[in-house]
Amino acid sequence: MTVPAFPPHLAGLWGSPYSGLAARQAAYRGETYPFHVGDTWMSPAVGCRVEDLYVADIPGLHAYTDTGGLPALRAALAERSAGAWGVPVSPAEVLVVAGGTAGLTALAGATLSPGDEVLILAPYWPLISSLVRTMHGVPIDVPFWVSAAGAPRVTDAATSVAAVAQRCTARTRAIYLNSPHNPTGGVMPADWIAALVAFARDRGLWIWSDEVYEAYAWGGAHVPVRPLAPERTVSVHSFSKAYGMAGLRAGWLVGPSELIAQVGKIAINTVYHAPTPSMHAGLRALTHGAAWVADAAAQYADTGAACARLLGVPAPAGSTFLFLDVSDALARRAGANDGRSPGLAGLLEALADAGVLVAPGPSFGPYPHHIRLCFTAVDPDRTLRGVRTVAALLGR
Amino acid sequence: MTVPAFPPHLAGLWGSPYSGLAARQAAYRGETYPFHVGDTWMSPAVGCRVEDLYVADIPGLHAYTDTGGLPALRAALAERSAGAWGVPVSPAEVLVVAGGTAGLTALAGATLSPGDEVLILAPYWPLISSLVRTMHGVPIDVPFWVSAAGAPRVTDAATSVAAVAQRCTARTRAIYLNSPHNPTGGVMPADWIAALVAFARDRGLWIWSDEVYEAYAWGGAHVPVRPLAPERTVSVHSFSKAYGMAGLRAGWLVGPSELIAQVGKIAINTVYHAPTPSMHAGLRALTHGAAWVADAAAQYADTGAACARLLGVPAPAGSTFLFLDVSDALARRAGANDGRSPGLAGLLEALADAGVLVAPGPSFGPYPHHIRLCFTAVDPDRTLRGVRTVAALLGR
Repeated sequence: MTVPAFPPHLAGLWGSPYSGLAARQAAYRGETYPFHVGDTWMSPAVGCRVEDLYVADIPGLHAYTDTGGLPALRAALAERSAGAWGVPVSPAEVLVVAGGTAGLTALAGATLSPGDEVLILAPYWPLISSLVRTMHGVPIDVPFWVSAAGAPRVTDAATSVAAVAQRCTARTRAIYLNSPHNPTGGVMPADWIAALVAFARDRGLWIWSDEVYEAYAWGGAHVPVRPLAPERTVSVHSFSKAYGMAGLRAGWLVGPSELIAQVGKIAINTVYHAPTPSMHAGLRALTHGAAWVADAAAQYADTGAACARLLGVPAPAGSTFLFLDVSDALARRAGANDGRSPGLAGLLEALADAGVLVAPGPSFGPYPHHIRLCFTAVDPDRTLRGVRTVAALLGR
Repeated sequence: MTVPAFPPHLAGLWGSPYSGLAARQAAYRGETYPFHVGDTWMSPAVGCRVEDLYVADIPGLHAYTDTGGLPALRAALAERSAGAWGVPVSPAEVLVVAGGTAGLTALAGATLSPGDEVLILAPYWPLISSLVRTMHGVPIDVPFWVSAAGAPRVTDAATSVAAVAQRCTARTRAIYLNSPHNPTGGVMPADWIAALVAFARDRGLWIWSDEVYEAYAWGGAHVPVRPLAPERTVSVHSFSKAYGMAGLRAGWLVGPSELIAQVGKIAINTVYHAPTPSMHAGLRALTHGAAWVADAAAQYADTGAACARLLGVPAPAGSTFLFLDVSDALARRAGANDGRSPGLAGLLEALADAGVLVAPGPSFGPYPHHIRLCFTAVDPDRTLRGVRTVAALLGR
């Protein structure tokens, strides 16, 4: 007999959300600009790298450890959260996970039955939609940060609530917030957050608050969500984004201890625990990484603002991304007879042929006329050279 | 309003399958014996440790990389499989994953719709049952390696097939094989494997072949399953078990390239990719780790045999475990008035009070009168001292 048919939910999952054109870009002979994935060009702080972790100093460095995370790390993270938020936080409210993605997947697994819905403010980080589908939940797009066809524009706290209320059903279990925001570079105002938290409380929803870019909101504008609704909020944090450790796969959640215990069960069954050396590196970054973060934040702010100037858009308020409306360039390309695909695909091909990869708008929701660009993936000078190429191709 | 109710599948998931008595053991003042988790006391080979991975040598060591694994590692693993199996293996058949657990979870996600069933030969590694539940599948216990109440005894190829056939339904999508075997230390004979493979082909099932202990089958008795049914078999391998890297969370799958592509989609959505430094360490172990493995295999065989002698049971044929029938000790404890719990729980408490943690039989299936003991978690001398304590408490 043959093999079983693939389950239908696979059709809704991303295989390669950020770019399918790496091979095409590789044919370009000059300097390349991989602006498609969100990452940093910087290595972690000296003392916080894997080369700094010695078997002679750290018993069990390559072995299993506590599945919820190294006890010293959980305690340090609880203390850090308590200090940042001004409220008590116990280690039982903290779960160390194998990166923000793994943390959110475990959170989806612990809060959703098949068919349960999650409200996701669009545009959104592509994996939030597909990880909900992976756990057999249903992601519900809420056009929010950027207008989409047929959706009213969100401009304040009242229209924020109206946008999510319109799509909230009896099957809704959670709302996903993300500020500082991937992909737009926005930071949500405090009154919008307060209104959305009140909505979630009123409807009995969990709040998944993705704050992995919390260190990168210029001017201290970041609003931590968990203190506003501790009974229902799980905040998601990441050594990847905060400390330049994306490859180490370590992050943490902070939430109600009963829910955290359940999320821990899913985490055990998806990856067992965060990598042990990564947790040690993260612990060092927590204690010795502040200067690195301050340096990165200043540099990211400068680079983001310089990129925005070149592209003729407002400077990002946080995160490491710009989300560009390229309708004008698409209109100019319409009917172009250059052998490239029609529409956005052809523009992405033209960029790849000039050595630039960017992520397509449709990976982030109903945005067929947008692209996302990460301005921290390579060093600032190279980033600006690449963004000049982008600006020229977009006619800016 | 309140928060949503937890989804019902959480009730079937392990939080702490291996022991809940660590705090009790910690009160013991003498040498302790953590025999409950499957791990090795050895550090990885020199040159293959995180301290050997330098930012100066490895660009992007702490950054994201290809989600399917470092291209050089995928190629090396394909070559390794081809050499071991004597058949061509392409890199597209290989997926690097964040450990065997993450690989099997992704495999479950890519092959099961909610309610689909998986045949699991019992006793079994506890997480295989709960990771199927995590993905909303249904694990079906098949008493197999050890007799269980009400089940016929499996003694040859024909009774092997009869055992699985009895529990195969229209919802069955896969059969999980695991040899060398956790928890019994058994290695499945080639004719049993051939018969089970023929059964899976006849019924149109996927075969999930967990071969993470392949290096630890004394006497070369391990039978690789994938070459027998390449159209339906995914084999699961682990740097954790092979090279002493459990804390690094890296392993790999080999399977049909179409299925591997789908599994890769789930893997992206559960952990994004295996930790980058762990993949570099794994690549080094593949090329420089053979002597370490040979040494470990000889030592594990000797230690396993010595433990078995002390406990009066046959030597294990592979893996790093003994699965002990403790019915006699439980019968002697019946009615004991020592303040401990009745039944198996009381025996586990008595062991913990003597500094020994072992895993309870019910974590491995319908085995209320068994315990599992890992004989590689601490060095051989300490292991033998601990096993003498176990033997004394069991009256052996």
